[in-house]
Amino acid sequence: MAVSLHHIVIDAHDLPRLARFWTQVLDWKILSEREREVVIGTAETAPVGICFMPTTDHKAVKNRVHLDLSPDPEDREREIERIIALGARRVEIGQTGGESWTVLADPEGNEFCVLRPKAMLIS
Amino acid sequence: MAVSLHHIVIDAHDLPRLARFWTQVLDWKILSEREREVVIGTAETAPVGICFMPTTDHKAVKNRVHLDLSPDPEDREREIERIIALGARRVEIGQTGGESWTVLADPEGNEFCVLRPKAMLIS
Repeated sequence: MAVSLHHIVIDAHDLPRLARFWTQVLDWKILSEREREVVIGTAETAPVGICFMPTTDHKAVKNRVHLDLSPDPEDREREIERIIALGARRVEIGQTGGESWTVLADPEGNEFCVLRPKAMLIS
Repeated sequence: MAVSLHHIVIDAHDLPRLARFWTQVLDWKILSEREREVVIGTAETAPVGICFMPTTDHKAVKNRVHLDLSPDPEDREREIERIIALGARRVEIGQTGGESWTVLADPEGNEFCVLRPKAMLIS
């Protein structure tokens, strides 16, 4: 393959804080930490990691790119509460209530979804 | 693990077109295609796929979440030209020229980076 997906990059104000939040959510670890770049992943050789880089921009609109997380179905509600306790919050971005996901935002407002088993089965 | 990264979701206006662009960039395939959701990945069992979902929002600001792609170092310039021929364009988002990446945008304006070997080595 001539080009491959390397990192998901998230612009951040407080890199160490946001990186720590996401390592706790995903049970990943910090792979490298520098002032202007923190990388997290499952392991050095993992196919995809998340890289946090600094921005001074304030969040203005709903992100056009976001992450979907799949929980163990029986742990879904407990997982959502655990993630909220880590610093996330529930957000309203026009959901109708019929969605097969719950929308949360990380401590810097980046939306992400925790899927229901239905969405995990069909996608 | 109680929750895992399932999909990267990209809001899109023309789902089939954007999904096709990204399958061609990454040499991935379309795993499922419905009117309101197109999923691409390397295989059904791949750790992370990209899911395209519809939006009516117009792109207004630089995305806070983007993808970094790593090319084979010797193919980097050819890869950038190949990706541009598929429908990407070079964009200026305040680069100083000293970055270890080239910024492109997909056909709907979503920024992404093609790394230089230096960035691939240190991250």
